[in-house]
Amino acid sequence: MIRFVVTGHRASTTGDFKLDDIAGGAGRLDILVRCVNSAFFLSHSIRTDVELFLVLEGGGDAPKTVRFCGKELRYLNPDERSTASLIRNALLKKLGSDEVRSSPGVYVSRRSFSDIVDHLKGSPIVYLKEDGTDIRGSKFGDDVTFILGDDKDLTEDEEAAVMACGPVKINIGPQSLHADHCMIVVLNELDRRRNA
Amino acid sequence: MIRFVVTGHRASTTGDFKLDDIAGGAGRLDILVRCVNSAFFLSHSIRTDVELFLVLEGGGDAPKTVRFCGKELRYLNPDERSTASLIRNALLKKLGSDEVRSSPGVYVSRRSFSDIVDHLKGSPIVYLKEDGTDIRGSKFGDDVTFILGDDKDLTEDEEAAVMACGPVKINIGPQSLHADHCMIVVLNELDRRRNA
Repeated sequence: MIRFVVTGHRASTTGDFKLDDIAGGAGRLDILVRCVNSAFFLSHSIRTDVELFLVLEGGGDAPKTVRFCGKELRYLNPDERSTASLIRNALLKKLGSDEVRSSPGVYVSRRSFSDIVDHLKGSPIVYLKEDGTDIRGSKFGDDVTFILGDDKDLTEDEEAAVMACGPVKINIGPQSLHADHCMIVVLNELDRRRNA
Repeated sequence: MIRFVVTGHRASTTGDFKLDDIAGGAGRLDILVRCVNSAFFLSHSIRTDVELFLVLEGGGDAPKTVRFCGKELRYLNPDERSTASLIRNALLKKLGSDEVRSSPGVYVSRRSFSDIVDHLKGSPIVYLKEDGTDIRGSKFGDDVTFILGDDKDLTEDEEAAVMACGPVKINIGPQSLHADHCMIVVLNELDRRRNA
């Protein structure tokens, strides 16, 4: 399984935003929405071996984690608006202490970034960071968790939680890219390794 | 200069669509909008050495070409809705036989796919296609034009126009990806070659 964890430092957790305003009122939810597109879309199918954790840290009901599970996903379309709608529906679910299913393959819980890192630390962790080593020379299998921030770096506390797992630190090339673009480069590299 | 040409086989040319419905009523304009995002966004800046030609072939006023010029671009944001608005504004311009500027770095004309290929055939042409050779072993400089379709392959006539230029045919890896994702892999490869 290939897992991605992306933090949305200001992303709305209340679901009371307009789908016309996901880059504004929803706290740059547009970035996370594009990460969903990158994680799952192939030309004519969905990547069933990918799981994506979006950790939303903004708004009045933070933190929440929306989890997308590729092998169960339905009703996912590539455009931003429809994916934002799936996330909004998840955020509008009543939540207790357990994870709740919002739609096929979409789950929501009150887990924080450190909860998610703790949950995934049994698998090899790869931290995507400009000062890492080049992905093309890096060693990791395809049961792996990649961690990245939205348009902001991880906070000090978040980075400390990741570094405590002893991650491999990699970068995806000489230019610093948006999170969703980084994921495309990572998945292309994994596709190549599997095919080699 | 790095140029991309993307055909939108059903994409609206009239501009009379709703920004809430770019994946539907606008003829999968969402695909072209994501190509704009891929072409230009770096983490903290715009790729000024990229030019993107979107050839729109749907609706009642086809064909039109909307050209994005990286070194002049302003008012470009990464979310789909705002980019669709830039394209809609271009499509609402009155057009004669010349290209017209719609906003800084955004131009529109009545040029067809074959007009654009004819315009660019002086530079090396790379045709992105599943049966091409792997980009990592392919030779091309960074004054180059990449041609790709939206979610549909090029038509027979379009492919004939491209093949008449004697293109290099490449693929971006073992999986077939959406056009905007292909562009990310291409640009990552070019970034690496420039940095080598």
